[in-house]
Amino acid sequence: MIKVGIVGGTGYTGVELLRLLAKHPQAEVTVITSRAEAGIPVSDLYPNLRGHVDLAFTEPDVNALGQCDVVFFATPHGVAQNLMPALLATGTRVVDLSADFRIRDAELWARWYNQPHGCPELIDQAVYGLPELNRETIKNAKLVACPGCYPTAAQLGLMPLLENNLVDSEQLIINAASGATGAGRQAKVGMLLTEISDSFKAYGASGHRHLPEIEQALRDMQGAGSKPAQVTFVPHLLPMVRGIHATSYARALDASSLPDLQALYEERFMDEPFVDVLPAGSHPETRSVKGSNMCRISVCQPQGRDTIVIMSVIDNLTRGASGQAVQNMNIMFGFAETAGLDVVALLP
Amino acid sequence: MIKVGIVGGTGYTGVELLRLLAKHPQAEVTVITSRAEAGIPVSDLYPNLRGHVDLAFTEPDVNALGQCDVVFFATPHGVAQNLMPALLATGTRVVDLSADFRIRDAELWARWYNQPHGCPELIDQAVYGLPELNRETIKNAKLVACPGCYPTAAQLGLMPLLENNLVDSEQLIINAASGATGAGRQAKVGMLLTEISDSFKAYGASGHRHLPEIEQALRDMQGAGSKPAQVTFVPHLLPMVRGIHATSYARALDASSLPDLQALYEERFMDEPFVDVLPAGSHPETRSVKGSNMCRISVCQPQGRDTIVIMSVIDNLTRGASGQAVQNMNIMFGFAETAGLDVVALLP
Amino acid sequence: MIKVGIVGGTGYTGVELLRLLAKHPQAEVTVITSRAEAGIPVSDLYPNLRGHVDLAFTEPDVNALGQCDVVFFATPHGVAQNLMPALLATGTRVVDLSADFRIRDAELWARWYNQPHGCPELIDQAVYGLPELNRETIKNAKLVACPGCYPTAAQLGLMPLLENNLVDSEQLIINAASGATGAGRQAKVGMLLTEISDSFKAYGASGHRHLPEIEQALRDMQGAGSKPAQVTFVPHLLPMVRGIHATSYARALDASSLPDLQALYEERFMDEPFVDVLPAGSHPETRSVKGSNMCRISVCQPQGRDTIVIMSVIDNLTRGASGQAVQNMNIMFGFAETAGLDVVALLP
Amino acid sequence: MIKVGIVGGTGYTGVELLRLLAKHPQAEVTVITSRAEAGIPVSDLYPNLRGHVDLAFTEPDVNALGQCDVVFFATPHGVAQNLMPALLATGTRVVDLSADFRIRDAELWARWYNQPHGCPELIDQAVYGLPELNRETIKNAKLVACPGCYPTAAQLGLMPLLENNLVDSEQLIINAASGATGAGRQAKVGMLLTEISDSFKAYGASGHRHLPEIEQALRDMQGAGSKPAQVTFVPHLLPMVRGIHATSYARALDASSLPDLQALYEERFMDEPFVDVLPAGSHPETRSVKGSNMCRISVCQPQGRDTIVIMSVIDNLTRGASGQAVQNMNIMFGFAETAGLDVVALLP
Repeated sequence: MIKVGIVGGTGYTGVELLRLLAKHPQAEVTVITSRAEAGIPVSDLYPNLRGHVDLAFTEPDVNALGQCDVVFFATPHGVAQNLMPALLATGTRVVDLSADFRIRDAELWARWYNQPHGCPELIDQAVYGLPELNRETIKNAKLVACPGCYPTAAQLGLMPLLENNLVDSEQLIINAASGATGAGRQAKVGMLLTEISDSFKAYGASGHRHLPEIEQALRDMQGAGSKPAQVTFVPHLLPMVRGIHATSYARALDASSLPDLQALYEERFMDEPFVDVLPAGSHPETRSVKGSNMCRISVCQPQGRDTIVIMSVIDNLTRGASGQAVQNMNIMFGFAETAGLDVVALLP
Repeated sequence: MIKVGIVGGTGYTGVELLRLLAKHPQAEVTVITSRAEAGIPVSDLYPNLRGHVDLAFTEPDVNALGQCDVVFFATPHGVAQNLMPALLATGTRVVDLSADFRIRDAELWARWYNQPHGCPELIDQAVYGLPELNRETIKNAKLVACPGCYPTAAQLGLMPLLENNLVDSEQLIINAASGATGAGRQAKVGMLLTEISDSFKAYGASGHRHLPEIEQALRDMQGAGSKPAQVTFVPHLLPMVRGIHATSYARALDASSLPDLQALYEERFMDEPFVDVLPAGSHPETRSVKGSNMCRISVCQPQGRDTIVIMSVIDNLTRGASGQAVQNMNIMFGFAETAGLDVVALLP
Repeated sequence: MIKVGIVGGTGYTGVELLRLLAKHPQAEVTVITSRAEAGIPVSDLYPNLRGHVDLAFTEPDVNALGQCDVVFFATPHGVAQNLMPALLATGTRVVDLSADFRIRDAELWARWYNQPHGCPELIDQAVYGLPELNRETIKNAKLVACPGCYPTAAQLGLMPLLENNLVDSEQLIINAASGATGAGRQAKVGMLLTEISDSFKAYGASGHRHLPEIEQALRDMQGAGSKPAQVTFVPHLLPMVRGIHATSYARALDASSLPDLQALYEERFMDEPFVDVLPAGSHPETRSVKGSNMCRISVCQPQGRDTIVIMSVIDNLTRGASGQAVQNMNIMFGFAETAGLDVVALLP
Repeated sequence: MIKVGIVGGTGYTGVELLRLLAKHPQAEVTVITSRAEAGIPVSDLYPNLRGHVDLAFTEPDVNALGQCDVVFFATPHGVAQNLMPALLATGTRVVDLSADFRIRDAELWARWYNQPHGCPELIDQAVYGLPELNRETIKNAKLVACPGCYPTAAQLGLMPLLENNLVDSEQLIINAASGATGAGRQAKVGMLLTEISDSFKAYGASGHRHLPEIEQALRDMQGAGSKPAQVTFVPHLLPMVRGIHATSYARALDASSLPDLQALYEERFMDEPFVDVLPAGSHPETRSVKGSNMCRISVCQPQGRDTIVIMSVIDNLTRGASGQAVQNMNIMFGFAETAGLDVVALLP
């Protein structure tokens, strides 16, 4: 039983970590911090945890966190950077769910997040926590930077095509849509039920912070000799709670010599516990992964033309955040990769 | 590991049984029947089960079902009645989620369900499967009739008051609201998203089939010497998927001598694994029990007047159907009552 | 063409007033105030108004408002009280959508709103703007206090029973549910889509500010010789945008001598342009009044027992606020009562 | 006052026609047909019409319809084709909301709709009723084929780019999402609230019937000398009632010489009563057009790269069907184009 700490547990990724870890056979949450809610039982904020989690929030404290085997950061960007040097110095390993260590180029990070990076010297140690891409390096990582929700869905969807240099990497389009939990639990007029229910819109069309992260990982997975991936990424806001759907479009470099796409995808992910390639002709629904760590994918080539369409769905709070964080922890500590994550999605 | 059969597994209570039983430590589903879908893998209908359940639907067959230790009926009313004599004769025990054996008076059943009862001779053997009321008799029951969703929520909410003869039992009001899964998975215009989304209405105000069931169980729990419970029951349809909320109103027989209601409720349910009395002043939310077997209850006495208000919430598919069915199975087979049901509700 | 001013136009009742008045044949909005948004075009906040309303918000100013024939207050409680003496002194007539002048007992108001009433000397002049109750006095009123949303639905539903002394007025129960716009457009965590979507709960069960308002108007409509109405009122929050549904329960004083309830209701509201009694056996849906000023009502007497059930629906922003305000304006200025309000509800 | 007939008025486009025409100053519905509901008052099916529409459904009858000045077909595809020769022979003009006469190539129509075209000889007379494209020919048309919902949103969004040969017309991508009313009012399991609420998915990714219609009209609007438009079109199903959002992607032929896109769009639609180009940097929301005939559009060029993104929203039942049908009628009969359509969208 390893000891787990959570920094910033009042948001949705925090309660999702607690939901999953409460039933993990080899991990136990011993510390959960929140400056604003210190002293309050966790289950006062989240009644679903009544009877499952007895912890109360405490002030963040490096000494207490340092006694954990692993610490999750479920904080807004900018927080993990400041605590990281002191915390890593204690020998505790870290899974950061925030954006702080996802981008290797500190300048690029600073430009998209409108602030200088608070800890550029540790960026090199961070491993991007997409298991399908970096499983081996995650095993021994001290610091894992968990992928964002949109990037997870999109990167898995495009992976087989880019690894095999099959598409024009400079003309990638990712049209994605997210449930409202993607925006967190802050009190904002724009996220009231009365503002976004029964409606749909794009946002951040001219530039969203997940763009550089997406492009970096796509480039990491590209086969040798291909031009660096360039993406047009438009996110949309769905009138629902959980779920991300990415519809990605890629243009075949040579449509006449494409391999069987269905077979390509099935083989690529055959041994992956958390990627499910649906039968040909299927369309994945976000509800089919609600509360689970699975990513479901379909691929097709409409009218046999040059453009390939990939549809991939995840639960943004599970595979897009807390579930993938637990998956990374499992890999880091040599547990079964599915420990605590072998959950059937809640449908209907 | 006991062997479990499910009759009529294509509906929502069927897939919910599969979700719960797929992770049960002591039970394994070996047969699932559906005339209409025979031959089709279960996961074709319910993609959330991909990777968790490998079964395919088969034609209902008493021999195959008779080899199970327990069979669940997740069928519309009228079906279990016909199979029951042959099935019970095999020695298999049965948990019936339908309404067939809930009402002890066959005439009354026939009147509300507009058809003669198909198997009146077995009604006596049926135990009404509300564990908080009938735990001891459930243990040895051959046939458990699982309570309906509305009855479960309402009966638990009124139980402490009726057991102690505190309220006018002839003036009970149960105002309840259910998510749309309560209506099942039939193709009906009236249940289209386009008809019931973003709207709210009552239905069955002048008479709903759960009324006689509610009154029967309330009378079973009443203290000696009280007048038989009489209920005004109005159900409403919520524009959402899962969840039942019952707001019950009872008039104190003597408001000046009422005990502390909060203490009364807390003590009554102190040892119940699946009833949670919320702190005074709370209001239970249906989402706090989504996907879980818990019933959460609040009680208050507005303005110190004579009318007591009880709010109780359950997930209609879990505690209101399949979860309670598994709880009954656990009791029948001497398993831990929480086996397979120790699930954190999915929130948000 | 009369000139209309709106104070506090940034909330949902403000935009709803603009939607309705933009097409009113005899009224024109000339001033709309908002301290926070002064200088901003109205259509920047509410894109549905693009092309229909050219106004910009201005600072509240009694002189400018005093040049209007009528001023609507679409403000939180406490605001209208402060401006009222100066504004009424200009001769402008006022329709106040807030709670400031609804309750005739200043002490009672102060207790429920946790602050002293800012203008008790004008309370006497205020007419409670429920046209079905006070149409004649509204005609010449200087100051109309528009009913709250819950009170409107509940009072219309109980009106025929109370006017005719048919029920026990001390045992009234109003179980009501509202769409989330009832809570306004403030940034509150508790009203995020992610908190209240796909869920249902009661709130304010032990005391809601609409209770004294409901009881006051019910007492106004009671026939002579009856005991003052006493209500148990429990509001609930619906996971949807617009609509209120009130399910009211009243106990017949003498069930054996009740008149035909359907006929009673139909006759009472026969000449009312904005009350529609549905055919016997119907259940009103909130969507049937979406965006319209209509209140639809059904009444029934389940199992022929003593308890009468009344279901009434309104759009909380239209009949429950801005539509009823316009209806009051029409009555005050001698316009057709339906002017600007002859709208077909948006269904589906 | 012209006389209007509606064939097939029980679906959502039927009730939407009635909502709009009930308040039209120059048109009056005199006949509405439905084989299944003949004899039933329209307001029994659609309670929002109570008090506004007194008609009852009748059996379809060419003589009765032939006495109308104009007849709308609000029928599934295949129906209008059969009645059209007889009806046009009476001199009545027709606005067909179905797909029957949208595609000029009868072979192509037959392939996508899996049946031979029932009336190929009249296809030539049909005018595609997109006013921004064909206003002049609509004026004298005998038969107007109203555009589909997806095509309307997508075609308006791409129009300025294609008219001016600015983009690679062989690489167009239209990623669109629709509310569930787009699927009509048929009883289908797949459209139950319990199946599609709180979820999101693509459908028809490998081929949707609106594809040939979209390509045909895009080709009609292309400037001389360009290659025929070729589109990848992926529709998605939104968990909501009304609204279409099209996110279209087009690759600039020469990004370095593009005109100011914002100005291009604003100028193109300056005189269009039902197209609203939003300010630069905006994102249109579907709720901003709910119940209205407006199409709102935004355009941007993310990161200054080659790919242009256009977002366009309509209400699928109004601008995507019945509203546009009334707009066509207005043009055909010389009424103000906005007659009966000057409605403020219902927001919130």
